[in-house]
Amino acid sequence: MRLTIINGPNLNLLGKREPSIYGDQGFESYLEDLRSRYPQVEMSYFQSNIEGELITAIQEAGFSQDGIILNAAAYTHTSVGIGDAVKAVPSPVIEVHISNTFAREEYRHQSFISAVVKGVIVGFGLQSYELAVLSFLSDNK
Amino acid sequence: MRLTIINGPNLNLLGKREPSIYGDQGFESYLEDLRSRYPQVEMSYFQSNIEGELITAIQEAGFSQDGIILNAAAYTHTSVGIGDAVKAVPSPVIEVHISNTFAREEYRHQSFISAVVKGVIVGFGLQSYELAVLSFLSDNK
Amino acid sequence: MRLTIINGPNLNLLGKREPSIYGDQGFESYLEDLRSRYPQVEMSYFQSNIEGELITAIQEAGFSQDGIILNAAAYTHTSVGIGDAVKAVPSPVIEVHISNTFAREEYRHQSFISAVVKGVIVGFGLQSYELAVLSFLSDNK
Amino acid sequence: MRLTIINGPNLNLLGKREPSIYGDQGFESYLEDLRSRYPQVEMSYFQSNIEGELITAIQEAGFSQDGIILNAAAYTHTSVGIGDAVKAVPSPVIEVHISNTFAREEYRHQSFISAVVKGVIVGFGLQSYELAVLSFLSDNK
Amino acid sequence: MRLTIINGPNLNLLGKREPSIYGDQGFESYLEDLRSRYPQVEMSYFQSNIEGELITAIQEAGFSQDGIILNAAAYTHTSVGIGDAVKAVPSPVIEVHISNTFAREEYRHQSFISAVVKGVIVGFGLQSYELAVLSFLSDNK
Amino acid sequence: MRLTIINGPNLNLLGKREPSIYGDQGFESYLEDLRSRYPQVEMSYFQSNIEGELITAIQEAGFSQDGIILNAAAYTHTSVGIGDAVKAVPSPVIEVHISNTFAREEYRHQSFISAVVKGVIVGFGLQSYELAVLSFLSDNK
Amino acid sequence: MRLTIINGPNLNLLGKREPSIYGDQGFESYLEDLRSRYPQVEMSYFQSNIEGELITAIQEAGFSQDGIILNAAAYTHTSVGIGDAVKAVPSPVIEVHISNTFAREEYRHQSFISAVVKGVIVGFGLQSYELAVLSFLSDNK
Amino acid sequence: MRLTIINGPNLNLLGKREPSIYGDQGFESYLEDLRSRYPQVEMSYFQSNIEGELITAIQEAGFSQDGIILNAAAYTHTSVGIGDAVKAVPSPVIEVHISNTFAREEYRHQSFISAVVKGVIVGFGLQSYELAVLSFLSDNK
Amino acid sequence: MRLTIINGPNLNLLGKREPSIYGDQGFESYLEDLRSRYPQVEMSYFQSNIEGELITAIQEAGFSQDGIILNAAAYTHTSVGIGDAVKAVPSPVIEVHISNTFAREEYRHQSFISAVVKGVIVGFGLQSYELAVLSFLSDNK
Amino acid sequence: MRLTIINGPNLNLLGKREPSIYGDQGFESYLEDLRSRYPQVEMSYFQSNIEGELITAIQEAGFSQDGIILNAAAYTHTSVGIGDAVKAVPSPVIEVHISNTFAREEYRHQSFISAVVKGVIVGFGLQSYELAVLSFLSDNK
Amino acid sequence: MRLTIINGPNLNLLGKREPSIYGDQGFESYLEDLRSRYPQVEMSYFQSNIEGELITAIQEAGFSQDGIILNAAAYTHTSVGIGDAVKAVPSPVIEVHISNTFAREEYRHQSFISAVVKGVIVGFGLQSYELAVLSFLSDNK
Amino acid sequence: MRLTIINGPNLNLLGKREPSIYGDQGFESYLEDLRSRYPQVEMSYFQSNIEGELITAIQEAGFSQDGIILNAAAYTHTSVGIGDAVKAVPSPVIEVHISNTFAREEYRHQSFISAVVKGVIVGFGLQSYELAVLSFLSDNK
Repeated sequence: MRLTIINGPNLNLLGKREPSIYGDQGFESYLEDLRSRYPQVEMSYFQSNIEGELITAIQEAGFSQDGIILNAAAYTHTSVGIGDAVKAVPSPVIEVHISNTFAREEYRHQSFISAVVKGVIVGFGLQSYELAVLSFLSDNK
Repeated sequence: MRLTIINGPNLNLLGKREPSIYGDQGFESYLEDLRSRYPQVEMSYFQSNIEGELITAIQEAGFSQDGIILNAAAYTHTSVGIGDAVKAVPSPVIEVHISNTFAREEYRHQSFISAVVKGVIVGFGLQSYELAVLSFLSDNK
Repeated sequence: MRLTIINGPNLNLLGKREPSIYGDQGFESYLEDLRSRYPQVEMSYFQSNIEGELITAIQEAGFSQDGIILNAAAYTHTSVGIGDAVKAVPSPVIEVHISNTFAREEYRHQSFISAVVKGVIVGFGLQSYELAVLSFLSDNK
Repeated sequence: MRLTIINGPNLNLLGKREPSIYGDQGFESYLEDLRSRYPQVEMSYFQSNIEGELITAIQEAGFSQDGIILNAAAYTHTSVGIGDAVKAVPSPVIEVHISNTFAREEYRHQSFISAVVKGVIVGFGLQSYELAVLSFLSDNK
Repeated sequence: MRLTIINGPNLNLLGKREPSIYGDQGFESYLEDLRSRYPQVEMSYFQSNIEGELITAIQEAGFSQDGIILNAAAYTHTSVGIGDAVKAVPSPVIEVHISNTFAREEYRHQSFISAVVKGVIVGFGLQSYELAVLSFLSDNK
Repeated sequence: MRLTIINGPNLNLLGKREPSIYGDQGFESYLEDLRSRYPQVEMSYFQSNIEGELITAIQEAGFSQDGIILNAAAYTHTSVGIGDAVKAVPSPVIEVHISNTFAREEYRHQSFISAVVKGVIVGFGLQSYELAVLSFLSDNK
Repeated sequence: MRLTIINGPNLNLLGKREPSIYGDQGFESYLEDLRSRYPQVEMSYFQSNIEGELITAIQEAGFSQDGIILNAAAYTHTSVGIGDAVKAVPSPVIEVHISNTFAREEYRHQSFISAVVKGVIVGFGLQSYELAVLSFLSDNK
Repeated sequence: MRLTIINGPNLNLLGKREPSIYGDQGFESYLEDLRSRYPQVEMSYFQSNIEGELITAIQEAGFSQDGIILNAAAYTHTSVGIGDAVKAVPSPVIEVHISNTFAREEYRHQSFISAVVKGVIVGFGLQSYELAVLSFLSDNK
Repeated sequence: MRLTIINGPNLNLLGKREPSIYGDQGFESYLEDLRSRYPQVEMSYFQSNIEGELITAIQEAGFSQDGIILNAAAYTHTSVGIGDAVKAVPSPVIEVHISNTFAREEYRHQSFISAVVKGVIVGFGLQSYELAVLSFLSDNK
Repeated sequence: MRLTIINGPNLNLLGKREPSIYGDQGFESYLEDLRSRYPQVEMSYFQSNIEGELITAIQEAGFSQDGIILNAAAYTHTSVGIGDAVKAVPSPVIEVHISNTFAREEYRHQSFISAVVKGVIVGFGLQSYELAVLSFLSDNK
Repeated sequence: MRLTIINGPNLNLLGKREPSIYGDQGFESYLEDLRSRYPQVEMSYFQSNIEGELITAIQEAGFSQDGIILNAAAYTHTSVGIGDAVKAVPSPVIEVHISNTFAREEYRHQSFISAVVKGVIVGFGLQSYELAVLSFLSDNK
Repeated sequence: MRLTIINGPNLNLLGKREPSIYGDQGFESYLEDLRSRYPQVEMSYFQSNIEGELITAIQEAGFSQDGIILNAAAYTHTSVGIGDAVKAVPSPVIEVHISNTFAREEYRHQSFISAVVKGVIVGFGLQSYELAVLSFLSDNK
């Protein structure tokens, strides 16, 4: 099974940025753990601060991978284009968020992505990614 | 580990109601599967069409169980009282939805519960409940 | 022909409550008149002040009766759950209101039920119920 | 008993226009049925696509007829002037709609007429007119 | 000096319609008074219930008269087209209202005409027309 | 003098729930104090988490008691039905809140009850109930 | 006949402030003209930049004068208190504005005063005051 | 190929009205040019200031012509009825505007027609009509 | 115990202004009653129609008195500055209103003061002040 | 004549993405057709998923080309920056859309670009580009 | 160079009021520092809690000083009149705020003054005033 | 002292773009002046039209520089991601704008950045940057 994890803006600062909200583990370190826990899944990873590069990454993964785990971070709330990319590709996409976006600013309660994904997982810290992996694995059984 | 699953209005019709949205398996039948898959979890179950009975159920489970999996269904979008109950109890609560509420009517995009739960899982069909169980199990490890 | 009339909160006070808006006849007394006028219709009747009991009543009548006449009263304007129940059952439902809700407070102009019923009859006093009966009878001819 | 039925814009296309919403019977044909079913009612009929002609028709019927059955169609949602005419005349007016306007576009959920009529009947197809006739007949008994 | 008074929908009912709001004098009778009080002004008069006829009347008077006194009644609040006509003609236009529209329904507080007229006179009963005449006379001195 | 105190959802948790907002005294214990301080008042008490049971309680007390002290808690902000019940009964009702609802979430700033009660007392902790009692006593002098 | 003209903030700058909107005549100079044109009217005059002083002025004139001509200027759009004062006094009040407020910023389209005055005159330059005088004179005949 | 051009209110003033926005050529003169440039197209033309006459014109052309070019002018922004007529007829309709409505008042940014037409052409001056003709011609090739 | 009562605009007209809403007793007369009923409280009193003088009064009382009873009247709904003053001083402030502001115009439902006071008492007529005194006395016991 | 066509996000998927909305021809293939049909026009082409690259492309073409045809796709509805770029350059820009954006989601009805372009062409499929070319050609004649 | 600093309501409490937001230095003390640091500037100072007195101060300084530094505090967000005064005078005005108003309550994000000033400086503590002085000095060089 | 100036989209056109709003000096030329005026400050400079590159630049400067001067231009009003980056880094950020954004389109009045910066300087032309430098220098003293 091949999955791509796509992370949006400022997630490259994970572990350094507002640890009370996002925790203190960097994403690469977490990804290693995840890969070792699920050796049956081939996980590729892409991060960008640039909305259009995220669109391109979804377009590429979306025709070749078995699934995409997408944390569009800040673009979640403003990007029509990422939503359009998700809708345009055949691979199923799961939207994840580390923090509970519904407990934060009003403008983080809206998502242009949620309506077009397979499912949404919000607020479990880095575990959100693992739950998405588990969902894909379970579908695959 | 002891978990309580609390289901809100019209979920007693699961399997009979709008199968294109909610699938055709009744919840009791699904619950059996779930219990057999996770024998290490003691799962109790409560369903009611009455908002206040859901509040009472959260109050009761919320001081005695290790976690609550809550699908408040229609009350999700209108009940300040259920949100207050979740906030009032020490047990962690995970909010789940079977359908992708963000892809449905505008008024289903708002939740009075999301801001006060541990995490939110939306749109995975009945699998949403299993992911919640897995999240609790993983925390417990 | 079998119809169920379901009345929502405070309609048990009919005849006692704000007679300038709702008239001074109690509903049971009106129901007797109605039954004697339409002996060919078997009319059952349910009233509750509890939203969830109205949902349950719709669920029950909705799989066994030829039609439901529903006056959800105050819940009309706030209950997503009653609307969901109406949508979930095969029996046709007609929404009725005694007073002209459109001539009253702004928040009574919205209905979560209207979009999913067969038809809406508003403002004819207790005659609203009779018009609903006539509609079902006429369909049945 | 003398009633006037007043139909607004595009209802002259009935039977030809969007039959999935409005049915395939023309209004004149339906009117004949209605007249034969209720010989005790003298029904006059007026249709116009012009808002101001509808206002004039209401003004004329409103001082001479026992009642008006008004389907203002599209003007329902935008015409302050038709509402003013209804309020200005002594004859009671019943507002009817063929389709369930509450199940259609948001802008069809608002009516400038509903607040000033005797009653509102929505969504019963052409039967909506008959229910209005029945209401007037019943008042007259 | 030549002025045209243009009255919108339902003003033909003046004296008959809601006398508590609009008074009990018909407009023609008032116009006679007005003409006899201001013999130096040649007043023509046009009334229509039809929005488009009001537009045409403004277009015609607007290139030939010294001024227009416009009470667009209900169309005041909904007609972009009448506002466009006012803006399109060289003659100055004064907007008048008999009742105090600001003390009535919310939707009567907005005018598509006010922003493009020379001045607005609201709430003086039929005297509103006279004040408009006086304003034109005073400008002319 | 006979008064009924009616408490809404989650107030049964008083003393246990969010003590920083609601204090740490349970309501029953407070009620005892109150009764001993005002022996001339016969105070009955009802609490329910169920909206419809609160409606029924208001209906019952509202025709037999000298006054009702109502803390509808979360339902304050969403229940048209409780407001309707208050309006339907002859006994005067005083709305009370323990916390300062105006200093909390936006959705707690709106009340469907305030417009139909005799008076509103907000934010004095449990003292809010006592002030309501004092108001009834003072009227009675 | 005794009238009081009350002018609000920045109208003391008339003639100096934004002459393209407000003209270049100071108010005192205009007032002299007005008095000489209408010797039968005793006109007192008050101007203040302070909202509360305008309230006091309305309270004083409102129990002793035959009428008040009020240009509350900027406070028109924000002062509930001036509206309350107008409503509290027996003397009729006419609201005037020099510029066409409806052709300016959105926030100048709303008035807290209009709903409680006898009439509103907007946009005639300083002539607005004269039309108000004429209205009072005409009522007095 | 047979096309009908339908123009709404105030477009009869073209060339005379606000030339800085609409240019100084009358529509009839432009139409001659257009006909001579596209002799293969039989172009009929209708203009009215009356909303209902535009509806009737669309109904008539809509069952007999190969296409309609519609500039509903001011009614674009307020007429549900014209949109309904467009939806009711089989002929394709292209919506055109001379000026760039999106660069003008907020209320000109909304169209009740755009959602139901084949395409929208805005802001090219009179060339907007020609582009619509070219679109129909190109489809026809 | 030393309390200051601060009354806002138009409350100097109490007894004269809209007696159906505010009663017919002047405030000074009421104050005498109040003082004689609570001789243990030293009550000072300040009234002004000027927002800024109310701010100054709160600043002065707020550092020297044991409590402030504030009825900001119309400024309640528009004054950020009075709210800021309340927040700036150490003395506790109780907000009172004579009429039930929630049963009046929409713009009286919002308060810039409520969120920063100790408590809010609304709608008990002049008794509202007495309840505030009682609250301060009770705290002091 | 030199024109640049600039396409925004996801338009690189044309022919692959949601063919029911966007058709099944890729843009490059269409561009070839277009070039062969209009040999007198030198058409350059740029596509990017990155908002800022589109801004840069507009800046470059906007000082050197005779015109720009811009389909900003998803960025149309959210990009202030693209609108600013269009406004900043001397070359005229025509905004085009393949699908009828007004018939899709609410958030696609708003454009930050329309107000600053020469004209807007919406909903003609790929023909929208050709109509833009024809408009530039016609201006050039 | 002559500058006037004008401070609005509650700024007289500076140093005493909410020191975590506004710091603990009184304004007079700060003003001394500022004067000694910029001896080449003649700084006059005015503070009032009264909106109308601020308007008058702006009117006076605005025709005689080289510049005004205005911190209207709470009136910033509600005063149309202060904005009008700024617009009415020839002297340039710089708006300053001590705290970051954009990081506080929603209603502090709007300013009726910003649109008509030379520039806005927000959030630098008392340094905001110094930056304004520096801006005037720099212009003067 | 080390500062980074970060400029957003279209600011590379400074001097060429809309000189009436932005002036006619290019930014590089201005930067030279600035550097020569403040030799004690080491100023680095970055400009990009790409939102994500601005985010990356803030991330880099934000852990190494003594301060950031940020003019995010159009992204100010739409970018949640830039605001997140500012919040994520330890270096203080000052937001500057050349033009008075509050005097321009409504959508330029909102900033996703202002709430998380040290201070905001708006409308001083290029001087805005210098004031920001002066603020950093002054803090450093």
